[in-house]
This record gives sequence, structure tokens and C-alpha cells, in this order.
Amino acid sequence: QLSKLPASQTTIFTKMSNLAHEHQAINLSQGFPDFPVDPQLIELVSNAMRAGKNQYSPMAGLIQLRERIAEKTAAAYGYTYHPETEITITSGATQAIFSCIAAFIHPQDEVIIFEPAYDCYEPSITLFGGKTIPIQLSYPNYTIDWKMVANSVTPKTRMIIINTPHNPSGTVWSQEDMAQLERLVADTNILILSDEVYEHIIFDNIAHQSVARYPNLASRSFIIGSFGKTFHITGWKTGYCLAPSELMKEFRKVHQYNVFSGNHPVQEAIARYLENPFHYLSLPQFYQQKRDLFLSLLEGSSFKMNPTSGTYFQLLDYTAVTEENDIIFAERLTKEHKIASIPISVFNTSKQDDKVLRFCFAKTDDTLKQAAEILQTI
Amino acid sequence: QLSKLPASQTTIFTKMSNLAHEHQAINLSQGFPDFPVDPQLIELVSNAMRAGKNQYSPMAGLIQLRERIAEKTAAAYGYTYHPETEITITSGATQAIFSCIAAFIHPQDEVIIFEPAYDCYEPSITLFGGKTIPIQLSYPNYTIDWKMVANSVTPKTRMIIINTPHNPSGTVWSQEDMAQLERLVADTNILILSDEVYEHIIFDNIAHQSVARYPNLASRSFIIGSFGKTFHITGWKTGYCLAPSELMKEFRKVHQYNVFSGNHPVQEAIARYLENPFHYLSLPQFYQQKRDLFLSLLEGSSFKMNPTSGTYFQLLDYTAVTEENDIIFAERLTKEHKIASIPISVFNTSKQDDKVLRFCFAKTDDTLKQAAEILQTI
Ligand SMILES: CSCCC(=O)C(=O)O
Ligand SMILES: CSCCC(=O)C(=O)O
Repeated sequence: QLSKLPASQTTIFTKMSNLAHEHQAINLSQGFPDFPVDPQLIELVSNAMRAGKNQYSPMAGLIQLRERIAEKTAAAYGYTYHPETEITITSGATQAIFSCIAAFIHPQDEVIIFEPAYDCYEPSITLFGGKTIPIQLSYPNYTIDWKMVANSVTPKTRMIIINTPHNPSGTVWSQEDMAQLERLVADTNILILSDEVYEHIIFDNIAHQSVARYPNLASRSFIIGSFGKTFHITGWKTGYCLAPSELMKEFRKVHQYNVFSGNHPVQEAIARYLENPFHYLSLPQFYQQKRDLFLSLLEGSSFKMNPTSGTYFQLLDYTAVTEENDIIFAERLTKEHKIASIPISVFNTSKQDDKVLRFCFAKTDDTLKQAAEILQTI
Repeated sequence: QLSKLPASQTTIFTKMSNLAHEHQAINLSQGFPDFPVDPQLIELVSNAMRAGKNQYSPMAGLIQLRERIAEKTAAAYGYTYHPETEITITSGATQAIFSCIAAFIHPQDEVIIFEPAYDCYEPSITLFGGKTIPIQLSYPNYTIDWKMVANSVTPKTRMIIINTPHNPSGTVWSQEDMAQLERLVADTNILILSDEVYEHIIFDNIAHQSVARYPNLASRSFIIGSFGKTFHITGWKTGYCLAPSELMKEFRKVHQYNVFSGNHPVQEAIARYLENPFHYLSLPQFYQQKRDLFLSLLEGSSFKMNPTSGTYFQLLDYTAVTEENDIIFAERLTKEHKIASIPISVFNTSKQDDKVLRFCFAKTDDTLKQAAEILQTI
């Protein structure tokens, strides 16, 4: 049988989590929390099930959840999405990204992405016959060379995928980046897919640059959100997509044949949980404490680091430790030192290896202390 | 923007459920139960959440759930799927079907389907550049003209999608149908996508003809299963896909970039719930009582019917009532008589209209009585 994704393998997240499990290592690889979910949120799901919300939700999602998302987005970024026609609840952010690419990428279309890039963009583009155009971010600051981006735009450019706060680097886009993007796409038909799943995990009072702040961008953009990341429920698989109605109409055509609809009791619960904005507005402070703890515990270690500005990932440069490539070193760290991380080269089409590993700090303070203790010995 | 699915509209299920809601009609259109879920199953999900099963499940699904599915399938059909490499848990059967088509259909590939057909097959094939080859089932018995099928096979035929028990007709395939299919695909590379979501909803002691009973078919087949249909939890969006490992490998490449993984606490709960086979072995009796009740209540009405052999749908022929086409009549029934159903012509590419409507009897006896009372007046 002819494979449609001959180059694709099991993702690095599955590989490293399995390896961590096998070697009983502290798992700072795949991005998920190891602390408990708010019991109130769990109760809300239980109540929804007991109240009989167990059959298909509407295809686009529960309207009360869409209304809460509309309010939240308008309050934060000043752009109002219409709950009926411009918001769709998805089975996680990944499904939203996949369906978006499915709905808009035709064979030969070019899609610009910024590398290192989250690993689902490229294979999804490839599956639909599109061509991925990777732009390498500078090392070590992961800034964008906008001239390089401009030079990569062709008449075939159909979409640009952006991601701020950025996984895996932890950098965030500036207003100037957004202005550059606005200028770049003006007078084109280029669509923007904006992966904003870490919108609430951002530090040092930096303002998240949602495309929803920029009407000229929002009018051509899909915004992807994740309740998994925001409410520590990555295993509940519930996210959303925002887009102007003409674009959303096409997105939904795919969505309804891909999954039809998302988990009903979870949607009911999140709609209620969102009534209290503290549940997400407290996130920057909550995670900044963890970032600061992790960084302070690593002071004086052999690793070099720039404090992460957003996401719950911290990159550590290990050039002072070994010349091993990042995949080999990440494996050895897991097997010998019992601490799992993610090598960054797998997120570069070029396999460029800057000798940095990504560590997830969405963990209890105890886990972070144990991890730092190990890292201090290396 | 160039639409990739210009012909696709909101599905008939969303349309009719919305219309039912708007007119406060009894909703026998979209296929879902209106009675409560087993409280034990709800407790199991609550327990899983409280026990902290809230982060990503493994990409292919919880291994204990895959093991239960392997045991259940082996016991029923005598074919053992390997839990590690041949079973994947999905975000519902629809996502399994979509991912399967995504992984294997190349542009220009031909896919044979039997019509009337569930409405997600054709657009999914179209989205990937494939060509749908519809075979019309005979009316009113929905039998297959195997000569016609044989004549439709070309060197480009990549897949045949079968569905037994069959939605919307309620017919089931015979051993002879399976033998015909075996003969047809022998010495070809044609894949089989076998939609068996109603495997446990089958009546009159008929044996479900799973492709897993036929090693020559199983070796080239995907079986799609649905816990939504089996455990009355269509809104929990959890199903699965079975296939030989070489095929499953390609399926998972798409699955991991489409949704990555399914809802974790639901998987945990279903794994436990499956330990008691009564939970699914009792289904034929449970639904046969409902079918028989519904049919007996309709005796003497203006509708003609063949008792359904499987699924929780009953077709009613209304030729004695009106000459209206089925879409118009289904709308009028909903608006004027407050009972919603599904017109069958929408499941035929040709729009062939045999003047039959589909009624879902996965409803409380009370709902069925109220519905029959109305239908008796027409
Ligand atoms: C879907 S598993 C990967 C989770 C994640 O977002 C990450 O680790 O980057
Ligand atoms: C996904 S909504 C349709 C449900 C169903 O299986 C049917 O009504 O046929």
C-alpha cells in the first residue's frame, strides 16, 4: 500500500513519554501537568453526565460554551466573534488545526511555518498535497527575519501558520511582529492559522498578541484555542476554532465529517467553569511561579538558559555538557539520569541541532525540585 | 476562497434536530437515545477523573481498553487483533472513518459505497480527491446486485465501504453477501472499510456478519466500532478502529496528527465497563423489545413497513399518505404533526426518492407511544 505520509513516524511526544515510563524517569517531555485538576471542574462534568447531557452536542458545539468564548475573547482582545457562525468547539486544538488545513489547503498550495515548529503542521499540510515552506527562526533568540518571510511569499502561498506564545521556544511575538505580518499579507489572499493554545500562559506582564487584536488580520484568520492547556485537562480533548463566518462555514464542512461534534458533558462543564474569569486570569501568575522556581533551582548548573516568556516549556542549552546531538543526549538523560525532555532538532525540517532540550515545568514544585536536583549533577 | 466541498451543506441530522427543537416535535430523526445512561458507567467516568486520569491518554488509546476490545472481538468473531499494534481508540466512529479515508485515499482513487449511505462517506472521499462510486441497493429490500458491484470494480478501485447492520435501511448482510465480497476482492488490492457501529443492535437471532469472521477479508479490512451506539453515549465521542498492523500503522500516522488521542477518563471507564459482557450482550433483546413495540403500535396505520433487522432505525413507506417528496413530507411532519424523522433521498447521490422516512426507536416506551399515536392519525 502506498503510504501518504512515508516520512512520518510516531511523534517525539509518544516516544519520550514511553521512554520515560520504561526507565521510570521524571517526565518533563510531553507537555501536560502532573498536578490535579480543579475538583470543581470535575464535579461540573459529573453533574452534566448525571443531568443527562450524554448525547450528541450540536455540531458546532454547545451554544452557551460558544457564548462564553465570545465574551472572553471580546473582553481580552476587543474583537467580537459571533457565537452562532464564527465559533466551533473541537475535539482538542490538534483536531482544529487539522480540520483547518483540511478545509483550505489544495494540492500545490504553499504554507509558511516558522521552525522549530510544533510537529503536527507539516504532516497535515503534506497529507492534503500542500507544500510546507519552513522559515528558520534565529538562534538563540528565535526572532523572525521578516525579509526572509517576504522573500518566501509566492502566488501559491495560501496560508501562514503562526504560534505565539511559541512552542517549543517559549518566545512571544511583539506588536512589531504583528505589524510586519499585517504589512506582509495586505493585498494578498493569504490566510492566517494562529495557534494560540498558550494564550494564558505568558509571563512578566507581556501582553499576548492575539490576531484578534488586529482586525486586518482577524478578518483572514483562524484562532485555535485549547481548554486542555488552560484548565490542565489535556486528556479531555476539548478546544475551539474562531474565524469570520465565510471561513468558518468551510471549516465546519470538514469538522462535521471529521468528528461531527465534541464531548458533550465536558462542554457543559467548561461553559459553567468559564463564568469565573479568575479560572484563566490566574494562570500567568500560577505558571510564572513555577518558571521562576525552576530557573532559580537551575542556577549554577551547566545549562544555559533564556527565561521563557510564554508556554510551560523552558529550553536548556547543554553545549557546556556534551557534544552529543540532542536526540542522543535526550535519550541518555532519560535512561541514565532518569529525566525526560524533548530534543528540539525534530521540530526543524533541516534537523538543525542547536543542542538545546525542552523541559515542561507544568509540574508540582516537588517534581521540579527533584528534576533540578538531577540537572544540577550533570 | 475556493471551497473544497462546494456541494456539502449542514448535515440532515443537524437540520432535522434543529427543526424538531424549533417546533417542539418528538425527535426521531438523529440517531441517539432519549433514555438515561447506566449510572454505573457515569460513576466510572467520575471515578477516573477523581483518580487523576485527566491528561493525554496514549496516542493509540489506553491499553486496557484495547485489550478488552481484543477479547470481545475474538470471543464474538474468532479473530484476534493485537492490542498493541492493531487497535486504536478514536474520538468516535466518524473520526475513525475520516482518518481511514485520509490515510488511504489518493487523488483519483475510486471508492465503492452502497446507497442509501451514511452521509459522511462521500464528502470525506471527495475531500481527499477520491471518486465515489455509488451502488444503488434495490428497493424495497435493499439487497445488493453483486453483478453490478463486479462491473463497477476498475483498476482504480482502492476501497469498498460496507455497513452492516445498515443505516438507514436496517437490513443486515448475509453470509452469502460476505462470500460474494470475498470472491470479488480476491486477487485484488482493494481495501475494505467495514462500518459495524450497530454490531450489537441486531434482531431475530440473526448473527452479525463482521468482516472479522472472514480471515480473507479481515486481512485487508478496517472495522469501525462505536461505544456511543453500544452504550447510549453518543455525546461522549469514543469509538475504535481495528486493522492488521501494516494498515493500522498508516491509520495511526493520520490519527496522531488529526486528534492525537481520545478522551482519557471515558476510555478508563469503558475499559472497566466492558469487563461485564452483559452490558453489550443484552442489547439485541433490549432494542428488539423497542422495535416490536414501535411496530405493533403502528399496526393499522397508513405506513407500510418491513421490520428492521438491525440498527435502531425503522423505515416507514408513506406512499399511501401523500405524493410529496420525502424532504417536504419530513418537514411537514415535523412542523404540523410534531414528529421529526429523516428523509432517505438525501443518502442517495441520485436523490432517488422512494418515499420512505427513517424513524429512530432508541427512545423510551413513552416517547414511542406518543410518536405512534401521532403517526396513527396521518
Ligand atoms: C499531543 S502531545 C504533545 C503535547 C504538547 O503540546 C507538547 O508537548 O508540545
Ligand atoms: C452524527 S449525527 C447522526 C447520527 C446517526 O448515526 C444517524 O442518525 O444516522
